[in-house]
Amino acid sequence: MEASDILLRDLDNNGVLRLTLNDAARRNALSAAMLEQLGATFAEAGDDPTVRVIVLAANGPAFCAGHDLKEMTAGRDAPDGGRAYFTKVMAQCSSVMQGIVNCPKPVIAEVAGVATAAGCQLVASCDLAVAADTAQFSTPGVHIGLFCSTPMVALSRNVAGKHAMEMLLTGDMTSAHRAAEIGLVNRAVAPDDLTETAMEMARKIASKSSMTLATGKKAFYAQREMDLAAAYDYASNVMVENMLARDAEEGIGAFIEKRAPQWQDS
Amino acid sequence: MEASDILLRDLDNNGVLRLTLNDAARRNALSAAMLEQLGATFAEAGDDPTVRVIVLAANGPAFCAGHDLKEMTAGRDAPDGGRAYFTKVMAQCSSVMQGIVNCPKPVIAEVAGVATAAGCQLVASCDLAVAADTAQFSTPGVHIGLFCSTPMVALSRNVAGKHAMEMLLTGDMTSAHRAAEIGLVNRAVAPDDLTETAMEMARKIASKSSMTLATGKKAFYAQREMDLAAAYDYASNVMVENMLARDAEEGIGAFIEKRAPQWQDS
Amino acid sequence: MEASDILLRDLDNNGVLRLTLNDAARRNALSAAMLEQLGATFAEAGDDPTVRVIVLAANGPAFCAGHDLKEMTAGRDAPDGGRAYFTKVMAQCSSVMQGIVNCPKPVIAEVAGVATAAGCQLVASCDLAVAADTAQFSTPGVHIGLFCSTPMVALSRNVAGKHAMEMLLTGDMTSAHRAAEIGLVNRAVAPDDLTETAMEMARKIASKSSMTLATGKKAFYAQREMDLAAAYDYASNVMVENMLARDAEEGIGAFIEKRAPQWQDS
Repeated sequence: MEASDILLRDLDNNGVLRLTLNDAARRNALSAAMLEQLGATFAEAGDDPTVRVIVLAANGPAFCAGHDLKEMTAGRDAPDGGRAYFTKVMAQCSSVMQGIVNCPKPVIAEVAGVATAAGCQLVASCDLAVAADTAQFSTPGVHIGLFCSTPMVALSRNVAGKHAMEMLLTGDMTSAHRAAEIGLVNRAVAPDDLTETAMEMARKIASKSSMTLATGKKAFYAQREMDLAAAYDYASNVMVENMLARDAEEGIGAFIEKRAPQWQDS
Repeated sequence: MEASDILLRDLDNNGVLRLTLNDAARRNALSAAMLEQLGATFAEAGDDPTVRVIVLAANGPAFCAGHDLKEMTAGRDAPDGGRAYFTKVMAQCSSVMQGIVNCPKPVIAEVAGVATAAGCQLVASCDLAVAADTAQFSTPGVHIGLFCSTPMVALSRNVAGKHAMEMLLTGDMTSAHRAAEIGLVNRAVAPDDLTETAMEMARKIASKSSMTLATGKKAFYAQREMDLAAAYDYASNVMVENMLARDAEEGIGAFIEKRAPQWQDS
Repeated sequence: MEASDILLRDLDNNGVLRLTLNDAARRNALSAAMLEQLGATFAEAGDDPTVRVIVLAANGPAFCAGHDLKEMTAGRDAPDGGRAYFTKVMAQCSSVMQGIVNCPKPVIAEVAGVATAAGCQLVASCDLAVAADTAQFSTPGVHIGLFCSTPMVALSRNVAGKHAMEMLLTGDMTSAHRAAEIGLVNRAVAPDDLTETAMEMARKIASKSSMTLATGKKAFYAQREMDLAAAYDYASNVMVENMLARDAEEGIGAFIEKRAPQWQDS
């Protein structure tokens, strides 16, 4: 299998890039090869004007099982017991997760199966997530002596403290229905409706101005780390620049004239 | 129409100031005149000892449609393309929203209709909100090329990240029921019960000590921007000063003696 | 009654330390004596390798009624009107609450009755909470002129802003069912199932590596006060150290070999 075969890419004519984790035999584990593929693909898609929205799906019963524990264990054979290797893997994984947050294109997780550990973190790191109502989520590191400390960075920015702690301390599975209740996913739907739900959401967003989406997504994550006054100063400035951009002039003009807008890049 | 006619004021004998957005023909848009009225009114009400609680309601099918797009568009005719004007409008609007947060009197939004863009931000900026179950909420700027970047400052401080992102990226309407589930409003009630629900909540709060309400509201927003240790240091100090204030001595004494307290300012 | 009789301790052979507030006559108020006992007990339990998880329960109809108002009122007789005394009490109480957060052992609140004011704060300060569906929660300081400013530090880190504000501004009781919906407790169960639910959760967590639990709990509260990039840098480092620890090597090895892990300290 070529490295690129573990992450399938399909760009439709709406600008929706569908990425499919395709290493079912390893439960789509975040191996070094998979992390490499994901990191490079999100970076490229971020720069590619033909990509407007990204959907992240998976083949097989597991959405993603997190780190590849056999690969990680092999790292212990180094003279330093694996310190340099683990440091590299964690930096790479954290970079991929932040690459999703920092990608100027909206990213939607489409979760049909089980998302565990860094696989759950992957879902939490996406802007939006839709799950089959048979999907399940967990941060089970506590079972194997390795607390899901990096997954919790993303998890705790999605759900309330006690909800996150229950997942982290017990390692128990959370149903898709419960995940929707607590905010880990936007909604849970029948398995047969999953792909269409995610793709319809993607196409709807893809019909917007890419400049506007990029402006807003960046501002969302930036402002929420500021205090209220700083957030308003920052966001007010973002609004002014957005107002002065061509697509806002076109969009507002089209709205007033009751016609469909024509975005610059579409 | 006089400028003051677009924002009606009614102070009852419980100290509940009822403000009603009254520009239904413009869907209660946040025109320069409306922002001016709102800013001045919250500032005055904050200083007025006869005002104990504020309810913000609206006439017409729209609670508030956000900025006045025709007025904004006219601003483009300036030699700078509108930069100075947009900067002024955004600063003014952000000041009004922060004026609600910083107002020492609790503010309750009473939402009968549609609250969109900066109108949704207005609801999110209030301390509490009650909605008719027919009300709807959205941040639809993405439809017109202008991402709701300032509304999201308030929205993202009310609801979970993926819930906020769904509203912001799709521009879709959120029902009152869903808004209650995700925390954007406290509850959704039958339209016929809306005003009484909001006013009953207002009268209940108005029966408390204004000093205590002002102390607590200020501390709430201040402490939640601090880390845990700093928040406890700050809030402990607030408690000490509150304990030493006349209304706490009276309130605790009344509680121990099983009688009704007499607040200093009522 | 001995001071120690107001806080009962029972350590079972799973490493679950069950603490029971036992001053029902005073509704388990956080008197100076109770705060002293709680502070010392959490500190000792944190250092005690035989304690793996802590359950905090209570005897009587009230889980905890918050500060002892008669004791507080007596403090007013000092020449400074109580300033030094109130300062000391608030510092002590905030230290106890932070002692729960900083305790390396997970803490589960088991709430059968009414948890009010600093009693509600106690629940909010625990990592997890289970309530009888007859339990109730409130921050009623506003009724007596003393806003629940320190309780809100914990409350506002558990639930959404408008949910916290409704409790704080109205002082109304929140049902256990509603508390579960908004994230103040993890779940509400039938009163007859309460203790078994809490203890089962405790035993499950107690079966994990204490090193791993301590690592993860500390990292949870630390990282959520950082911005995203800093949180990932920090948590990645925590993961590397965790991977290099003996219990992760054992746990991952056991997982790969499909056998039960043997933790270092069990």
